[in-house]
Amino acid sequence: MGRPYTGPLRFRAVMSVTVVGSIAFDQVKTPFGERKRMLGGSAVHFALAASFFDDVRVVGPVGDDFGEAEYAALRSRNVDTSDIEHVEGGKTFFWSGEYGWNLNDRETHDTQLNVFGDFQPKLSDESRAADVLFLANIQPDLQREVREQCVGARFVAMDSMNLWIDVAKDSLIETIRGVDCLMLNDDELRMLTGRPTLLSAAREVMALGPKVVVAKQGEYGAALITEEGLFFLPAYPLESVLDPTGAGDTFAGGFIGYIAAHAGDEPEGHLLRRAMAYGTAIASFNVEEFGTDRIQRLTREEIVDRVDELQRITHFQNAPIELRT
Amino acid sequence: MGRPYTGPLRFRAVMSVTVVGSIAFDQVKTPFGERKRMLGGSAVHFALAASFFDDVRVVGPVGDDFGEAEYAALRSRNVDTSDIEHVEGGKTFFWSGEYGWNLNDRETHDTQLNVFGDFQPKLSDESRAADVLFLANIQPDLQREVREQCVGARFVAMDSMNLWIDVAKDSLIETIRGVDCLMLNDDELRMLTGRPTLLSAAREVMALGPKVVVAKQGEYGAALITEEGLFFLPAYPLESVLDPTGAGDTFAGGFIGYIAAHAGDEPEGHLLRRAMAYGTAIASFNVEEFGTDRIQRLTREEIVDRVDELQRITHFQNAPIELRT
Repeated sequence: MGRPYTGPLRFRAVMSVTVVGSIAFDQVKTPFGERKRMLGGSAVHFALAASFFDDVRVVGPVGDDFGEAEYAALRSRNVDTSDIEHVEGGKTFFWSGEYGWNLNDRETHDTQLNVFGDFQPKLSDESRAADVLFLANIQPDLQREVREQCVGARFVAMDSMNLWIDVAKDSLIETIRGVDCLMLNDDELRMLTGRPTLLSAAREVMALGPKVVVAKQGEYGAALITEEGLFFLPAYPLESVLDPTGAGDTFAGGFIGYIAAHAGDEPEGHLLRRAMAYGTAIASFNVEEFGTDRIQRLTREEIVDRVDELQRITHFQNAPIELRT
Repeated sequence: MGRPYTGPLRFRAVMSVTVVGSIAFDQVKTPFGERKRMLGGSAVHFALAASFFDDVRVVGPVGDDFGEAEYAALRSRNVDTSDIEHVEGGKTFFWSGEYGWNLNDRETHDTQLNVFGDFQPKLSDESRAADVLFLANIQPDLQREVREQCVGARFVAMDSMNLWIDVAKDSLIETIRGVDCLMLNDDELRMLTGRPTLLSAAREVMALGPKVVVAKQGEYGAALITEEGLFFLPAYPLESVLDPTGAGDTFAGGFIGYIAAHAGDEPEGHLLRRAMAYGTAIASFNVEEFGTDRIQRLTREEIVDRVDELQRITHFQNAPIELRT
């Protein structure tokens, strides 16, 4: 993990997080409702979640339709929006999709790249100076360009998707070689590596360079694989889920935000496990309502309560027993 | 949980487990190999796993092709086979299936009910006197008949499958009303109740009568839902899986076997969580090799090691942190 900060917690230098990814308007239909135009995108969901822990800067393009209300939604959580690039005459990235009854089946109806189609990330000196960098799911060449600009980052994590495994696998693998942490859906990890089990797939990825692999498992939670060992955490169980859009990026924001704020304060094994728990807790709020509605009014007490509850619902203690063999 | 035994552990009366279900020959093809004829069936996998904890009696029919080698496989683990019904001139239940590369996709090639088609469970006095009864996945009318014969059972659990939800839902629900514990795949729980989330589905089931619901989640593990609370446990992570056949029944055997051997010794919350862990550990061995091969030579030390490891890979501790809101 590079150069951990070892000073006392209260006075430690604030470490900043930069995220590069999509800023979008989403149209979402689920069996429980429909929204025509919501603030979304990987960088937005990530930034809102990470903002509970640390200073966050968003890098990504928007068009003329991205207005004061959208900026305000980010700024109300103190997200730094000065590296959001406004493309004159352009339209913001638009995604439209529909979820089936069990919310695991997602169908994309429409993807309009718009200003995202010509996106060339331009990082300010401040964004480049980030201690922690998250490369959300964008074309892997772009991810690598950004990563190379942030020479001082002491922890770099990335996401990707099946599309890039299909059409840009070599570039994706080159990008993975340059990061500390790969976060990917578990199916995509298997697809990327051609390995049938999560464990064998994660070991393949670690052989490329990353010391930390996080397998996102949707409603089943997430798994953390490092050389030190494994950690599995279920998703926080909910009575009802309204809109799963952005859950993975919200999880990543909580996970990376926690790491940024606490690296060096805690043994790495504890740090990463707690980071998983905070990411999981915040993601669970995200899916309770459409878009970013729930996260906008989320409180610290609510987050901590869910982390405590996650601890309760996963804890067990072995005891000496007699077994017959 | 009925009448818990409260005497000292070393001298407590041994409680017996009866399982009613299929005894089969399985033909299985996976990307990692193929077997033409293996001992299988829900009652067999269950009984072998439960035999690590307690006395187990198997009730189910076999044909002339079920020979000494098959009886020996059960008896070598001290499973009581005296209620296995040999149907003269009949053939044993046969299942043939193939697994895809990720082992979650299973295709049934052939199902020959054979002697199982006319199965009418006949329980001896000893089987009827079981303290703990497991109704493996058979037609729900038959499950109910068996349940009604075991009037003294203080803990009754059952499995089922999507087929019975489709063709015998009313009977299945009537059967569920009479048991303490329903163990079902999570998709089937949603299908049964028409509820989209695990939690809402489990609450519907509990409203019917069962105090314990176990949602089996395949490679993602299992969830336990009771009125006291929730518990989630991942599957034990493996580098390679050869044959998933029987994993669910092996899990059930470990889970129910543990409960049978320890009910009354431990607070119910701890008991059920540990039971989940022992079921999970034993099931993980089952899938490492074809059929019952691995379980046949499984040792108590191996089981305990995996339970310890499950504890390590799920444990985390929250810590007071500062959050920004």
